Amino acid sequence: MHAIVCHASKDLRVEPQTEPQALTPDQLRVRIARGGICGSDLHYYQHGGFGTVRLREPMVLGHEVSAVIEAVGREDGSFKIGQRLSVSPSRPCGGCRYCHQGLPNHCLNMRFYGSAMPFPHVQGAFQQSLVIETQQAHLLADHVSLAEGAMAEPLSMGLHAIQRAGVVFGKRVLVTGCGPIGNLLIGSLRAAGAGEIVAVDLAAGPLACAEKMGASRTHNLAEDADALKRYTAEKGYFDVMFEVSGSAQALRNGLECMAPRSVLVTVGLGGEVSLPLNMLVSREIDLRGTFRFHSEFAQAVDLLNRQVIDVRPVISHTVPFSEAVQAFELAADKSQAMKVLLDFGVGD
Amino acid sequence: MHAIVCHASKDLRVEPQTEPQALTPDQLRVRIARGGICGSDLHYYQHGGFGTVRLREPMVLGHEVSAVIEAVGREDGSFKIGQRLSVSPSRPCGGCRYCHQGLPNHCLNMRFYGSAMPFPHVQGAFQQSLVIETQQAHLLADHVSLAEGAMAEPLSMGLHAIQRAGVVFGKRVLVTGCGPIGNLLIGSLRAAGAGEIVAVDLAAGPLACAEKMGASRTHNLAEDADALKRYTAEKGYFDVMFEVSGSAQALRNGLECMAPRSVLVTVGLGGEVSLPLNMLVSREIDLRGTFRFHSEFAQAVDLLNRQVIDVRPVISHTVPFSEAVQAFELAADKSQAMKVLLDFGVGD
Amino acid sequence: MHAIVCHASKDLRVEPQTEPQALTPDQLRVRIARGGICGSDLHYYQHGGFGTVRLREPMVLGHEVSAVIEAVGREDGSFKIGQRLSVSPSRPCGGCRYCHQGLPNHCLNMRFYGSAMPFPHVQGAFQQSLVIETQQAHLLADHVSLAEGAMAEPLSMGLHAIQRAGVVFGKRVLVTGCGPIGNLLIGSLRAAGAGEIVAVDLAAGPLACAEKMGASRTHNLAEDADALKRYTAEKGYFDVMFEVSGSAQALRNGLECMAPRSVLVTVGLGGEVSLPLNMLVSREIDLRGTFRFHSEFAQAVDLLNRQVIDVRPVISHTVPFSEAVQAFELAADKSQAMKVLLDFGVGD
Amino acid sequence: MHAIVCHASKDLRVEPQTEPQALTPDQLRVRIARGGICGSDLHYYQHGGFGTVRLREPMVLGHEVSAVIEAVGREDGSFKIGQRLSVSPSRPCGGCRYCHQGLPNHCLNMRFYGSAMPFPHVQGAFQQSLVIETQQAHLLADHVSLAEGAMAEPLSMGLHAIQRAGVVFGKRVLVTGCGPIGNLLIGSLRAAGAGEIVAVDLAAGPLACAEKMGASRTHNLAEDADALKRYTAEKGYFDVMFEVSGSAQALRNGLECMAPRSVLVTVGLGGEVSLPLNMLVSREIDLRGTFRFHSEFAQAVDLLNRQVIDVRPVISHTVPFSEAVQAFELAADKSQAMKVLLDFGVGD
Repeated sequence: MHAIVCHASKDLRVEPQTEPQALTPDQLRVRIARGGICGSDLHYYQHGGFGTVRLREPMVLGHEVSAVIEAVGREDGSFKIGQRLSVSPSRPCGGCRYCHQGLPNHCLNMRFYGSAMPFPHVQGAFQQSLVIETQQAHLLADHVSLAEGAMAEPLSMGLHAIQRAGVVFGKRVLVTGCGPIGNLLIGSLRAAGAGEIVAVDLAAGPLACAEKMGASRTHNLAEDADALKRYTAEKGYFDVMFEVSGSAQALRNGLECMAPRSVLVTVGLGGEVSLPLNMLVSREIDLRGTFRFHSEFAQAVDLLNRQVIDVRPVISHTVPFSEAVQAFELAADKSQAMKVLLDFGVGD
Repeated sequence: MHAIVCHASKDLRVEPQTEPQALTPDQLRVRIARGGICGSDLHYYQHGGFGTVRLREPMVLGHEVSAVIEAVGREDGSFKIGQRLSVSPSRPCGGCRYCHQGLPNHCLNMRFYGSAMPFPHVQGAFQQSLVIETQQAHLLADHVSLAEGAMAEPLSMGLHAIQRAGVVFGKRVLVTGCGPIGNLLIGSLRAAGAGEIVAVDLAAGPLACAEKMGASRTHNLAEDADALKRYTAEKGYFDVMFEVSGSAQALRNGLECMAPRSVLVTVGLGGEVSLPLNMLVSREIDLRGTFRFHSEFAQAVDLLNRQVIDVRPVISHTVPFSEAVQAFELAADKSQAMKVLLDFGVGD
Repeated sequence: MHAIVCHASKDLRVEPQTEPQALTPDQLRVRIARGGICGSDLHYYQHGGFGTVRLREPMVLGHEVSAVIEAVGREDGSFKIGQRLSVSPSRPCGGCRYCHQGLPNHCLNMRFYGSAMPFPHVQGAFQQSLVIETQQAHLLADHVSLAEGAMAEPLSMGLHAIQRAGVVFGKRVLVTGCGPIGNLLIGSLRAAGAGEIVAVDLAAGPLACAEKMGASRTHNLAEDADALKRYTAEKGYFDVMFEVSGSAQALRNGLECMAPRSVLVTVGLGGEVSLPLNMLVSREIDLRGTFRFHSEFAQAVDLLNRQVIDVRPVISHTVPFSEAVQAFELAADKSQAMKVLLDFGVGD
Repeated sequence: MHAIVCHASKDLRVEPQTEPQALTPDQLRVRIARGGICGSDLHYYQHGGFGTVRLREPMVLGHEVSAVIEAVGREDGSFKIGQRLSVSPSRPCGGCRYCHQGLPNHCLNMRFYGSAMPFPHVQGAFQQSLVIETQQAHLLADHVSLAEGAMAEPLSMGLHAIQRAGVVFGKRVLVTGCGPIGNLLIGSLRAAGAGEIVAVDLAAGPLACAEKMGASRTHNLAEDADALKRYTAEKGYFDVMFEVSGSAQALRNGLECMAPRSVLVTVGLGGEVSLPLNMLVSREIDLRGTFRFHSEFAQAVDLLNRQVIDVRPVISHTVPFSEAVQAFELAADKSQAMKVLLDFGVGD
């Protein structure tokens, strides 16, 4: 059994994993099937971390995985060997100040897979064999592939962002940034009945994907830098905006198109951004952060199982996990890749 | 009859006003009694405008006024000569896109007193005789002075800011900036049952006033620049923050003290501010603009009439309206003045 | 030109209409094209009113109409002769207590077409020629038929009911009562991304229509009275319920299936209902009334124009307006009719 | 050490309690100081239960208690022997469907003190020595008596009811029923800045207490049955109502005074109530249940510690716990008693 371990910037190794522990009654042992490479995984690989979060010891990467059950802690029929599932990486403590407030995604003791925020680091899910809690396990319907199952996690991000925005049904929505998260968000917005979805990006590939996912209209800002100017009349056009690119410029451009009392959800983890405070104040715009998810994971799997959202257009490549370094290099090349999946060689 | 007219930066004149028009049945003619000098009045006086809003013709200033009824358009007993009232400066059109949405403060055709945003400008309320609509008139109880009545407008700003924040009862609240708006807001927060109100400013006078208005604790950041550091543990202390100073630094300092899912209402009209987007995202902070008010004006007069909030500590000076230039110079001197009222010589 | 006038119970006449008045600049004269017979129209026809609302003078019925423009008050290009539109019957005053609060559907002076609540009664829209305000006019896209355009009004009812419920995306929803309003609501719920829509009724026809409109599952309670028992485990299954039948029994049965903190929107205008208060209290259920609509009319036409909802399965019959009595008799026969449209002989 | 045990209807005994178990690190052993007799305690005593909830084995009653620490599980300074505290009776599991949704008061496995809902029953807190979890312990400030500390629980009920209502600041509020819960709610509404609080009851004593707690106006419906008629004009006067009496008649009378889009929170656990559904629908009234509390317990103790609410007017009698039967008989006599406290003989 092997795991994908990041030792430092550009030092990614496929190496034998530690022996999984024995199961308690509320646990399952699973074989990981597919794993999506996320932006934070890439940051560890490329830069050894991000911001003040740095690798201080070797860490298994990965938190977007599907799996097949290999052993169950308690044989009560709830879970059976061979069942296929998505694994939620969200593991709040349940007892801290924020868990008590019903905000598990802000848990002070969160053990989110593949995170170097705490020390010792929380080891990730890119390992062939993994022991999980039953409440992390969300069963996939027969017609949902394990590849699709690995998309439940980034799909949950989009669903939580929508939850942060409030009602989107019938609303005019702008999405800036059409990487995997942005495009899964667009699919979710379509499912949630958004009235109009305008998507912008700086490249044609992501915008083509956005159209497949349900965008009403797309603008390539690299070709038409002023494309959003048409939405600025009468104090702004959009009711809701999702900023997914992490670009300060996207945030500024979008702001000018936002109507009074509109909501701007910032999904992208940018650094310092300079904002025209007067506009935010005089239009009473609501700028809301969104961070991870919790209950939305179950909703994501439900949407996949009921075939409400087709996530397949977002999967651009599948690479054997033994070629992890090549997979990470590919994922880093935005001109080629949308979502790159690692294939751990277990079923479909 | 005279009015206070701003012709250009530093060119403020007390000059004969135009003859008031005849009354329709839904109108009243009033004698203005007291008028508060607001930050925007000062901007016209000192700089001839702010941002892209510039004086392009002479304009009567003023929008914070109390008055006494001199004539009624329809003698049905609703209003009587001699009654004392606060005058709401909010005059939305009722028919535009935003009025239809129930957002009158964003009316595309708003005629807010003393505003150079539209051209011709909307003339203000610093004139001895004024014709108003009956729906602008809010009667004062006998025990409320005309000076207090002139405070209804800035009090409404605070009430609307609280409405934007949502529930404040029992919450931990930070207020940055203790000028007249900030201090009236503190009085409103106290009335609304805020659990704890921490007020910060760079000067002792405003903070002394904040304590009178109901702050639980104050910090002078000029003397103790790191005073807010004590509120940063466990991802932040405050549930709600009101940024009233318009200072980018205040906004940044405050952000670090805000708990996950907290709400930060920006009242102050600052320019460009640079924000650490990561913090806003990872804590899911809600940054909300607040702009003017509408229904809160009636609420403000009600709070004055029921003696729930004592606004008198905020009134620092009263100056005859004939000495308007001196009054404006005084109002501009933050080391001396909190709210400066003009006395139009009509009753108490 | 003729109108459909109700003189008393069972006394419905097609008689010459009064001459339309001259147009002001903000008005249009239209030829009515199609008109849907609503439950309240039927009540006037069958019983001369409902509850305390009784016919006290002859009244033109009707408030669900599409039309074609015949003359414009101001030729500025906003509207052109020959354009096809849906006519909103919602005409609030804009100046009363509730209009000021942004609640136009509760306007104290509402002039809703075909209503005997005020006296003189508000004459309805079942007349060949009608003068309307431009803000009542909502243009139809070329591919939307005038029959579909007449469905905008009942569709708005469903959209407003959803607005009252809050977020429905991904939620488990129960709809009791599958008449025209219920089925249009189901179509709207499908568009708004409801996770699961369970529809119940006492007849097979309405349930077949519910499936066409997007119900995930239907139960015929006449055949299986205990069908809802399966949803009562663990304190209840549904997050949202819409009670559209007006039946007290439906409300009671539904309550037992509602999860803690769920929302039950009552659309149907029933009389006295007896409720188990303990259940409502101990599950913290939210029982919310919904009444008419306002801004949702524009949203309804937008959904028709963008072909998001197909309302055609709800239209069961179209009858020439000259045969109004037969049409009303047909509409009253729930075993045959879903929505009955009157055809005023103008276009498609 | 003794406990107050209910064996059956009218069979209440003070008998030796079971030996408390050993402490885990997160537990405290406390001496109970004061205990309030609640309506549910009375139901067990008078009727052996309520509704389908019946005593099936002897059960210690009580869930409103203050205490003094006798031993700590972990000596880390968080808690010290001799400290005085209020004990929260809310003990959700943290792992069920509703706990995961952030709704701990609906926990499927709740172990609320003194409840016969589950079997075996959850033993109550009327016992001289009790082992609690540290997260149930809320320290009292020096100036708060142990009698006041025992009021934290019913105060929490009121605070949760307000949380259910949403914003009450500046709103017109009606409270029907002025027993201990109603009067503590009135105190909370005053603290939360309700604009006007009208309280009604059928007896003078409770209304006199309501005035002490902060009611703006009271009506004795036994003397003036039509007192609420004055609030019915223009579709109703009140923005928020709390029905605390559990009386169907109170609910009906109140409904007629509720303005469109108002909120009616039902606190009282009544049985079947018959409601005029038309009124609820046409005014879009929001009827919301409220049940127990969770996070509000900490807020209640905070309000006591900051002396925001004075709960002492609600305490009518204090009786030694050894005279439990007399105390329960007294509590059942509404003509004499408001809140009756049991004194377990430990400090003040």
